[in-house]
Amino acid sequence: MPHIALNSDEPGIRGLLRFRPETGRPLGELAEVLLRGPGTLTRGERELIAAYVSALNGCQYCSSSHSACAAAQLPGGMTLVEQVRADASSAPLSAKLRALLGIASAVQQSGLKVSVEDVAAARTAGATDLEIHDTVLIAAAFCMFNRYVDGLATTAPADPALYAVGAQRLIEYGYLPPPSEPQRED
Amino acid sequence: MPHIALNSDEPGIRGLLRFRPETGRPLGELAEVLLRGPGTLTRGERELIAAYVSALNGCQYCSSSHSACAAAQLPGGMTLVEQVRADASSAPLSAKLRALLGIASAVQQSGLKVSVEDVAAARTAGATDLEIHDTVLIAAAFCMFNRYVDGLATTAPADPALYAVGAQRLIEYGYLPPPSEPQRED
Repeated sequence: MPHIALNSDEPGIRGLLRFRPETGRPLGELAEVLLRGPGTLTRGERELIAAYVSALNGCQYCSSSHSACAAAQLPGGMTLVEQVRADASSAPLSAKLRALLGIASAVQQSGLKVSVEDVAAARTAGATDLEIHDTVLIAAAFCMFNRYVDGLATTAPADPALYAVGAQRLIEYGYLPPPSEPQRED
Repeated sequence: MPHIALNSDEPGIRGLLRFRPETGRPLGELAEVLLRGPGTLTRGERELIAAYVSALNGCQYCSSSHSACAAAQLPGGMTLVEQVRADASSAPLSAKLRALLGIASAVQQSGLKVSVEDVAAARTAGATDLEIHDTVLIAAAFCMFNRYVDGLATTAPADPALYAVGAQRLIEYGYLPPPSEPQRED
C-alpha cells in the first residue's frame, strides 16, 4: 500500500505522475529524450540499461516494465534481458554494450565509482562521448525513478503479461504525459 | 578532468547541461519545480534536503552548491547547514523537518529503506502527503544529479565563495536554462 494517498489506483510511477503532474511533466520529458530521442544507441539498448539498473536497485515495477520494453525491441528478446540481469558480463552482447553496462553498474553504486578504466574500455569498444554521457545519465535517472517508486511504496503487479501490454503502449506512444492530465486536489 | 570532452570549462552540472541541452531542459525544469515551485516547504528547507542528500552521496559540487543555497535562505545560515550535515538528528530543526530529513536519508540508501514508521513520524510531526512526496522526490532526484555530476567526473571548485556567488544567481534566476543555449556539435 502506498505511503501517501494517491488519487488513483495506477501502479508504480504512473500513479505518482498523476498525483503530481507538475513534476510528472519534466520526468516524462527526461525519459522520452533519454530512452526514445534521437541517438546512436538503439531504443532496445537504452531500455536494457534502464532495466539492468532497476534490477540492481531491486525495483520490481521499473525492472519489470523496462525489461518488457527492452525485450520487445531487442533481437534477443526476454531471453537476452534475463541473461543480462543474471550476469551481464557473460551475456551475448556487443563489446560496446557490455562496457556501457559496466559503467551503468558503477553509477548504480555511486558516481564516484566510475573509473577512468571503465570509460576507456567503453571508448576502446567504440562508444562515443555522447553514448557514454547518455549511459551515465540513464543509469543515474533510474537511480532516481527507482527510489521515487519504492520510496513511496507504490504497488507493482506480479503478472508479466501486464508489463508486456504496458511496453507496447510505451513503444507506441512514448513517455510524455497526455496533454490533459487531471489535477491533484490540494 | 571530466571523463568526456565537454564543450566548456563550466564546473559540475553546468557543463553537462550545456553539453546536452536536450536533457538539460527537463532536468532544469525538475529542479525548478521541486526546489522553487509553489509549496509549503520553504525554499531553504528544500535546498537543505538537497544539500543533505548530496553530502551523504559524497558529491562535492552539489553539496557545496546546495549548502550555499540553503544557507542563504534559512535563518540559521551556514551554521545550521553544517550542523545538519554533521548530525541531522541533533541539529536545531523543527520536528517536521527532522522527520523529513530522516525520510531523505532512507531514500539516499534505497527507496526500499523508507519504512511505514519513517512516514508515520513525519505525518505525526505535521507533514502533509505532498510534503512527504516532495521530500522523497527531492532526495531521489539528487541521487540522480549527484551520480550524473560525479559519474562523468566533472570539476568542482574548492573555494566556498564561488558557491555563495552561484547561490545568489540561482536564488535570483532559478534553475531553468536560458532560452538560447548553444548547441553541441555532434
